[in-house]
Amino acid sequence: MKRVYLDHIAGTPLLPEALEAMLPFFKERFGNPQSLHEAGQIALGAVEEARDSVARLVNASAAEIVFTASGSEANTLAVKGLALAGRNKGTHLVLSAIEHNSVLNAARSLEKMGFAVTLVPVDKTGTVDPGDVAKALTKETILVSVMLANAEVGTIEPVAEIARIAKARGVTVHTDAVAAAGQIPIDVKALGVDALSLAGDQFYGPKGGAALFLKKGARVLPLIEGGVQEGGRRGGTENVPAIVGLGKAAEIAAVRLAGRAEKARLLRDRLIAEMLRKIGHVVLTGHPLNRLPHQASFCVEFVEGEAMLLSLDMKGVAASSGSACTSKTLKASHVLLAMGLDHALAQGSLVFSLLESAASEDIEYLLDVFPPIIDRLRKMSPLYTDYLKENQK
Amino acid sequence: MKRVYLDHIAGTPLLPEALEAMLPFFKERFGNPQSLHEAGQIALGAVEEARDSVARLVNASAAEIVFTASGSEANTLAVKGLALAGRNKGTHLVLSAIEHNSVLNAARSLEKMGFAVTLVPVDKTGTVDPGDVAKALTKETILVSVMLANAEVGTIEPVAEIARIAKARGVTVHTDAVAAAGQIPIDVKALGVDALSLAGDQFYGPKGGAALFLKKGARVLPLIEGGVQEGGRRGGTENVPAIVGLGKAAEIAAVRLAGRAEKARLLRDRLIAEMLRKIGHVVLTGHPLNRLPHQASFCVEFVEGEAMLLSLDMKGVAASSGSACTSKTLKASHVLLAMGLDHALAQGSLVFSLLESAASEDIEYLLDVFPPIIDRLRKMSPLYTDYLKENQK
Repeated sequence: MKRVYLDHIAGTPLLPEALEAMLPFFKERFGNPQSLHEAGQIALGAVEEARDSVARLVNASAAEIVFTASGSEANTLAVKGLALAGRNKGTHLVLSAIEHNSVLNAARSLEKMGFAVTLVPVDKTGTVDPGDVAKALTKETILVSVMLANAEVGTIEPVAEIARIAKARGVTVHTDAVAAAGQIPIDVKALGVDALSLAGDQFYGPKGGAALFLKKGARVLPLIEGGVQEGGRRGGTENVPAIVGLGKAAEIAAVRLAGRAEKARLLRDRLIAEMLRKIGHVVLTGHPLNRLPHQASFCVEFVEGEAMLLSLDMKGVAASSGSACTSKTLKASHVLLAMGLDHALAQGSLVFSLLESAASEDIEYLLDVFPPIIDRLRKMSPLYTDYLKENQK
Repeated sequence: MKRVYLDHIAGTPLLPEALEAMLPFFKERFGNPQSLHEAGQIALGAVEEARDSVARLVNASAAEIVFTASGSEANTLAVKGLALAGRNKGTHLVLSAIEHNSVLNAARSLEKMGFAVTLVPVDKTGTVDPGDVAKALTKETILVSVMLANAEVGTIEPVAEIARIAKARGVTVHTDAVAAAGQIPIDVKALGVDALSLAGDQFYGPKGGAALFLKKGARVLPLIEGGVQEGGRRGGTENVPAIVGLGKAAEIAAVRLAGRAEKARLLRDRLIAEMLRKIGHVVLTGHPLNRLPHQASFCVEFVEGEAMLLSLDMKGVAASSGSACTSKTLKASHVLLAMGLDHALAQGSLVFSLLESAASEDIEYLLDVFPPIIDRLRKMSPLYTDYLKENQK
């Protein structure tokens, strides 16, 4: 059976170049970067070289990069760490309603510690209005966190404008760029943010290799306690192979990003156009234009996301129905609900995201197998039967 | 130049079998365990198989294992997570004075949130008296955390007895078994603990693969927020290759542990005996008998740990001067000070720890190169010159 992987947002395969760079650190170069001897110094050198590569991908300085084990850890460190370090200045946070659960849940934990949280709405394209952020700021606000792009609906947020507004009020700004990093160019200086999360497994680096950009001077309380690693901002032995792999993936992403995006956009646009043409009762979710180049997301009426995923899987197609962290909860996505979709429609969420290896044939295959799947599922759907009866009247 | 690696406690090389098991998950099996499609389910199956292997190493159930990215993360999750989840029952913690910095610093963070912390002392062998733990318990105590073994001085603590005392008072017990796991047999039921930390890079697994045993019913607040991973106890995409490698290392440790320990003990005992015979003004630190089988630690008078490490490194010998997380701080170790050593002597800390590949020739090589190093360093030491003058009088 043909295999078509259209679930980039759940994680990418590792670049052969990254694995090649990692292998010696699993074998003879197994030293601990904190050790004073040669084996340790070799590991330390590799970690610092990777730090440079990650910094360059987002136009930061190496000292501004804190390695973490996942995008969720970077997000949690940013939200909890910045809020707790800034507690003496105020206890109010402003987030968008469509943030990743790692950001939203970190904020909920802070609420239990006495912080107040305002969720800024999004419009029907999933876009935050910077004016709404401005209105949400109070004298107590110490942190704004709005993601750079949403994996589930693809929408790219006006983070630079939001940061300009918040910084003018002296408020620290974090952006979750886990879905965006490696897909669109990122410049932390142009964005004007104090903190930015990214994860290597979204741009062909290894799982376990992620980072938080923390602007010079931005103070966080550590989440993971321990030694002097990462400038005291994150304890625990450095995962040298994962860091080396992340560095190599960042180095390659900087070079290939534009080409990858251009290729993905062409295929993705065809996928969107044909999906809307071939399947009835389908809406594109997210912003029609201002969206991640490799992402196409829909809500399919009268059908549940899980049923579509399982049927597609039986045809060899891997897709998702939202962020991987929530795909099993079967709750309607908070992102789609915040965009104003009704519960029933939100249940029909379907996300296709393209790897750099995606080919035209993969899209054609999907477009062949998908319409019969939808026909079959709709025939079994009481909602659809009702709809047809209504329309026959 | 001959290379002799005597720094097991800073991390071990990866077992070829573990790397072999990991490789497919870097390549074709790159799926996200939370995805509903086949690629995701393959990854999930591998994660759950590894969970079984880790559980078996410590006689736990698979559902009681939470994967983390480091021993420090497991320790922080245990201390902060259990304390914050148990806050309504009380706000007092009891730790030993020689805990790892991840435990001590987590407790310090909790102090800032209103918790009280009692540090129980150790005797000159680095051993905690369970009676002292009993005395430290109050009606407010919700957590006792005493390590199973100390990497820096090798001493194995009477955790089963401590747990018996604490559990009789209804207090939750955590033990940091990062240095012990894979070196000595561990049975969480026999120990009677509620939580236990371990790290794969201490028993030939990969960096980035670690775990917290959490007894059924023990509740933690998550440290890293996010999705439904690890039963909601730890967000973030699972690091599938690291988890698979940890599982394989645990499976092999269960089989080889006794043989490894027996071999290491023989070499280690010779190292200790000859070191004490050949070098004057040296003391063995930690318990003389009740200690990790692969570990030998000393304080060398009139010489600084860092100078010894650098001199040894020039002869190809890798050793450490305490835990890797603190080796660069140049502060006297809190462990040695808690054992009653004076500051000057504690500066001369030196730890040798043996890999399973260590051979008799490695020990002979060390015993050849070390005495001239000490002679040379002491000739440059004003403290030693003073001592000689004193003694000539």
